[in-house]
Amino acid sequence: MSSDPIAELIALLGRLPSIGERTATRLAFHILGSEPAFAQALGASLAQIHERIQKCDRCGNFCEVSSDDEVLCRVCADGSRDSTTVCVVARVQDLVAIERSGTFRGRYHVLHGLLSPLDGIGPEDLPVEALLKRIETEGITELVVATPLSVEGEATALYLSESARPRGAKVSRIASGVPHGGELEFTDQVTMGRAFDGRREM
Amino acid sequence: MSSDPIAELIALLGRLPSIGERTATRLAFHILGSEPAFAQALGASLAQIHERIQKCDRCGNFCEVSSDDEVLCRVCADGSRDSTTVCVVARVQDLVAIERSGTFRGRYHVLHGLLSPLDGIGPEDLPVEALLKRIETEGITELVVATPLSVEGEATALYLSESARPRGAKVSRIASGVPHGGELEFTDQVTMGRAFDGRREM
Repeated sequence: MSSDPIAELIALLGRLPSIGERTATRLAFHILGSEPAFAQALGASLAQIHERIQKCDRCGNFCEVSSDDEVLCRVCADGSRDSTTVCVVARVQDLVAIERSGTFRGRYHVLHGLLSPLDGIGPEDLPVEALLKRIETEGITELVVATPLSVEGEATALYLSESARPRGAKVSRIASGVPHGGELEFTDQVTMGRAFDGRREM
Repeated sequence: MSSDPIAELIALLGRLPSIGERTATRLAFHILGSEPAFAQALGASLAQIHERIQKCDRCGNFCEVSSDDEVLCRVCADGSRDSTTVCVVARVQDLVAIERSGTFRGRYHVLHGLLSPLDGIGPEDLPVEALLKRIETEGITELVVATPLSVEGEATALYLSESARPRGAKVSRIASGVPHGGELEFTDQVTMGRAFDGRREM
């Protein structure tokens, strides 16, 4: 533990994305000047977040830790969702953005990454085999691949379409409408709706 | 405690200055996707920061908690500093910015606020009496008032000059050079140096 608690806090805050040393310093002094209860609540929330959240055993979405044999997220546990259509996303943030748009009523599969041969990330590093198994066990008829419109996202989509088609599932790709290289997380609802409506078979 | 740990974390992060819901969401998912050790270290640092930091008994600067009878910050404990010249600042951030510029070798007095009659903040709400006492007990010959160049900062400077002069201390104001309404925290070193060199008696 560092000898200077303020410098330590600034260094830790500065490891967050898009927070430089200047912003980290400003945040640290703001926190010092605020009620201790706020810093304690935020601290406890951060310290416990990994203990309180786990991945859904079925789709990989985040959900609260539970002692059930099979832990299911809200989407997987919701019997009213269309279980024959599964949307494949790279990150939980993308799932949250799609849910916010209200444009999709099926279920999800979260890869928590993308194929990236240059970084040594192959199909065995992602839950691809689990997805292919789900096609059979859950009677999935269509995979909507909503990985990003980037090189890795397209390569992942292509790999999934080639792997899933022999298992009897139609594979579609969300339509252009999401700008090339853009983030699904920050796509507005209209664009997200167009992307789902205009999906094309691969 | 909220039923959704992620929503709770996003809400708490969103209470930090200049962090909106979108940024808070991005930070929360980044933290969930990072090593648990990072979230735990940041969480512990936040939860403990108010217990580990207290105000210097002499000047109000932040310093580490200690069981000493008189707890002194690094500047007050440094015998090589000029004890006859004291720089008065509104916030610890301003002290840090002045220290970073290396332009001042005296000691400090941190008000942790400014006079603001409209907000009901009068001299009795700030450590003004303690500052006036220091003039006598420490033999201070000059107060350099480095409160912001704002309405409240100027009013506070004026009040201090009128209160301190009868006690025998010269009162000076940092020179213009710091832009009007600008933040001391973000002032570059050259400008900070000019402001100290060009200070004028009040």
